[in-house]
Amino acid sequence: LANAVTLGDLAGYLGGELIGDPQRRVSRVAPLESAGDGDLSFVAGRRYRALARTSAATALLVSAADRGIADTARIVVDDPYAQYARAVALLYPEPAPAPGVAASAHVDPKARVAASASIGPHCHVGVGASIGERVRLVAAVRVLEQVSIGEDSILFPGVTVYPGCRIGRRARLHAGAVIGADGFGYAPYRGAWIRIPQIGAVLIGDDVEIGANTTVDRGALADTVIEDGVKLDNQIQVGHNVRIGAHTAIAGCVGIAGSARIGRRCRIGGAAGILGHIEIADDVEISPYTLVTRSVRVPGKYTGYVPFDGHRDWLANAAHWRQLSRQAERIEQLEAIVEQLRKGGP
Amino acid sequence: LANAVTLGDLAGYLGGELIGDPQRRVSRVAPLESAGDGDLSFVAGRRYRALARTSAATALLVSAADRGIADTARIVVDDPYAQYARAVALLYPEPAPAPGVAASAHVDPKARVAASASIGPHCHVGVGASIGERVRLVAAVRVLEQVSIGEDSILFPGVTVYPGCRIGRRARLHAGAVIGADGFGYAPYRGAWIRIPQIGAVLIGDDVEIGANTTVDRGALADTVIEDGVKLDNQIQVGHNVRIGAHTAIAGCVGIAGSARIGRRCRIGGAAGILGHIEIADDVEISPYTLVTRSVRVPGKYTGYVPFDGHRDWLANAAHWRQLSRQAERIEQLEAIVEQLRKGGP
Amino acid sequence: LANAVTLGDLAGYLGGELIGDPQRRVSRVAPLESAGDGDLSFVAGRRYRALARTSAATALLVSAADRGIADTARIVVDDPYAQYARAVALLYPEPAPAPGVAASAHVDPKARVAASASIGPHCHVGVGASIGERVRLVAAVRVLEQVSIGEDSILFPGVTVYPGCRIGRRARLHAGAVIGADGFGYAPYRGAWIRIPQIGAVLIGDDVEIGANTTVDRGALADTVIEDGVKLDNQIQVGHNVRIGAHTAIAGCVGIAGSARIGRRCRIGGAAGILGHIEIADDVEISPYTLVTRSVRVPGKYTGYVPFDGHRDWLANAAHWRQLSRQAERIEQLEAIVEQLRKGGP
Repeated sequence: LANAVTLGDLAGYLGGELIGDPQRRVSRVAPLESAGDGDLSFVAGRRYRALARTSAATALLVSAADRGIADTARIVVDDPYAQYARAVALLYPEPAPAPGVAASAHVDPKARVAASASIGPHCHVGVGASIGERVRLVAAVRVLEQVSIGEDSILFPGVTVYPGCRIGRRARLHAGAVIGADGFGYAPYRGAWIRIPQIGAVLIGDDVEIGANTTVDRGALADTVIEDGVKLDNQIQVGHNVRIGAHTAIAGCVGIAGSARIGRRCRIGGAAGILGHIEIADDVEISPYTLVTRSVRVPGKYTGYVPFDGHRDWLANAAHWRQLSRQAERIEQLEAIVEQLRKGGP
Repeated sequence: LANAVTLGDLAGYLGGELIGDPQRRVSRVAPLESAGDGDLSFVAGRRYRALARTSAATALLVSAADRGIADTARIVVDDPYAQYARAVALLYPEPAPAPGVAASAHVDPKARVAASASIGPHCHVGVGASIGERVRLVAAVRVLEQVSIGEDSILFPGVTVYPGCRIGRRARLHAGAVIGADGFGYAPYRGAWIRIPQIGAVLIGDDVEIGANTTVDRGALADTVIEDGVKLDNQIQVGHNVRIGAHTAIAGCVGIAGSARIGRRCRIGGAAGILGHIEIADDVEISPYTLVTRSVRVPGKYTGYVPFDGHRDWLANAAHWRQLSRQAERIEQLEAIVEQLRKGGP
Repeated sequence: LANAVTLGDLAGYLGGELIGDPQRRVSRVAPLESAGDGDLSFVAGRRYRALARTSAATALLVSAADRGIADTARIVVDDPYAQYARAVALLYPEPAPAPGVAASAHVDPKARVAASASIGPHCHVGVGASIGERVRLVAAVRVLEQVSIGEDSILFPGVTVYPGCRIGRRARLHAGAVIGADGFGYAPYRGAWIRIPQIGAVLIGDDVEIGANTTVDRGALADTVIEDGVKLDNQIQVGHNVRIGAHTAIAGCVGIAGSARIGRRCRIGGAAGILGHIEIADDVEISPYTLVTRSVRVPGKYTGYVPFDGHRDWLANAAHWRQLSRQAERIEQLEAIVEQLRKGGP
């Protein structure tokens, strides 16, 4: 249920310059091609410009370079896409439920819950846990003993935070995320496995977002650490004692094995994998489906997957994958013989 | 707890021709080799025929081609395997709990729940949600604001459906499935990420089944769409604004990035990946572990993974993967030199 | 909250020989380099020895070979790493909540719950379920009809066990694990899919640990079986009718398709895949990201993934992957021509 806002107010909120009637209002966002009366749209990059000229949007967010792009009302901003994100948040505010604890929730008497927090139905807040100001536990969130949740965080249904873990401010944890389950640590002993109790915790900084059904294991001895501003997509697995540097973004289905250290501002593509004890420098990009098997010291983009093909073609080529070593030998032999032939040899 | 049914009734239910005593009863299904008195089995394909001749099953489902295969009572049907599936459903009906709302459930006064629906313990039905006739929310299901669930659907424990999503009729959503969490959308801004509020929803057609811990993200602006009859296995990740065509079946652990469009009747193997904004035609088959990096316009089967091998052999060959470009040059040089030699050159 | 224990008691508990003052106490564990007063550490392997000599730990667990390694108090044990695991469990006992059923839990009158079991908030125990002695259902655990949970097991928040499944003793099931959801079984029929009801169950042996958000599907007709001592990490998918042999350990994000049979004492790396109906012998090791496409009869290590590389180098080499078959032909032609040239031919 969108809000309406005047262009004057919007320009003020976004810190931009309005070219147009400050009293007009927008109440929705829409793509340039389908936008109509009351819609806000944005122009970011060359391919948007043609669409901008014919768009029926009420107002556009544009960069300084595009200030003259159309007669439509425009708000000139530093970064139209980022300011669009802010505008959407303004126009489509998330519902803010009344503070308080639902009747069906279970909050331990020894937990501290800020008066402005909202604890939804069937939530569970354990002994010694601390829930900050304006935190929202939507429903059926399990916050176990001694956990702390920083102010303005939202935890969606079915999130579990194990004992002793700490979540920073403005966190956004989606449904089914599990923070602080045991790391996978066993000692082999007489043909079986002895579990190594995992006594570290998980420390999560501010402004971290964690996707649905993503799991972050607690540390074995020291803590697993996720720094400020990290964004994790759905169904990511983060092993024990991993450290993820600030503002790194990781796409869905990635697996990160124990004790890996990932730098700041990295971008990791979907279903990539990072082996244990690997170090990845700041500003590294990993392609989807790429398994990182050794440390990466130099910023840049790294890749390793098989280009797909029609099945028969793949089959014909794949048969040779297992012959590459032998093939290399044959090429060397050919080179030696040809070299001899050139010299007039037999 | 199986039902018993006479062969006459069973043949009528399956639309088949009975050869045998209509008063005999079957109460279970079993494989040909272990079936005994009271068991129904089926014959589908050549390798089943020898087993069929010696099976102690009480009755067999057979195709017209196999009508004379044994003296056992037979029901001749159009498709023995499909009719077997229907027979199992008849013999092993799922328990139908009494309609009503469990005492520990939380149903918002502004939600509509059909009188024939069953809302189990610790379920949560939010403001404005609509639960259709004969829907079953088994336990601890979270149906948030303005969600609608079509008639005869079943949602298993721990399913979360985010606000505004719509689920069709006869859906089957397994435990831990998350429908409508935020898509992974951020704008880079001054060294950090600004979240782009995801204001689309998820629309799911009729007869869709979704596996345990599978996640389907809500759309950024438009909706994520799953058409009728789609079958998703466990632990699949479906990004925002994806569209999956009718009757497509996707195996476990597949990841589908944002805005991919998958055709109808496709089959996608386990742990395959589809990059964002890709289009896949109808009737395409993708092999397991294959990453689809560009659109596929032609029906057929597509593959891309490394054939596995003993570790030492793999290691020997893999070393050459990173030399393929150089190796190709060497072959070209050899060809040039050999051509010269053939012409009597130096 | 760690316990303190005297070295005399600890040596007795671990079955080791104490060299040092039996009255001294340790209350924590720590790595050799950061250990201090009151800390226990361990020496396992060559690279630990130098650290051991300078460690400020109060006591060390050492092997017989290292009994003279330092002046620090030592406990000589058969396997320092395994005994370290036992010592951690002694020093950091998991909280044992009081037996009983939380007020917000729902236990069906026809379920049996041992008097020593602890059923936490918002748990659900269905008709005919059986909960053994000292079992702990932490919170919001869903144990459906006719399930049995063996003694001393712990199920963390959000675990779902579907009807009829059996869990052995001393199980440890982490948050969001789903045991017994439907296997992915459909019969194609007239352009759509008919679901094959999955009437087998899941049988889990003793001492099995299952990670967060891991899913184990119920059998189609027979049962899915996980033998004693198996360790499954997070986000693993186990298909219907799979059998996993005793003491096999599987890392995160692995997918195992239906009816695969995995031997005993296997180790399977992260995000590996096992296709359906494959058999893997005992004592097989599968590398991460490796897809096993045929049965493995011989113990040993198996691998199949693409070595990653800088993106440009990968791109240059990957272009040739789809030319390998053609390239092999060119090498054969070269060999034939060169052979002719050697013989003095044209």
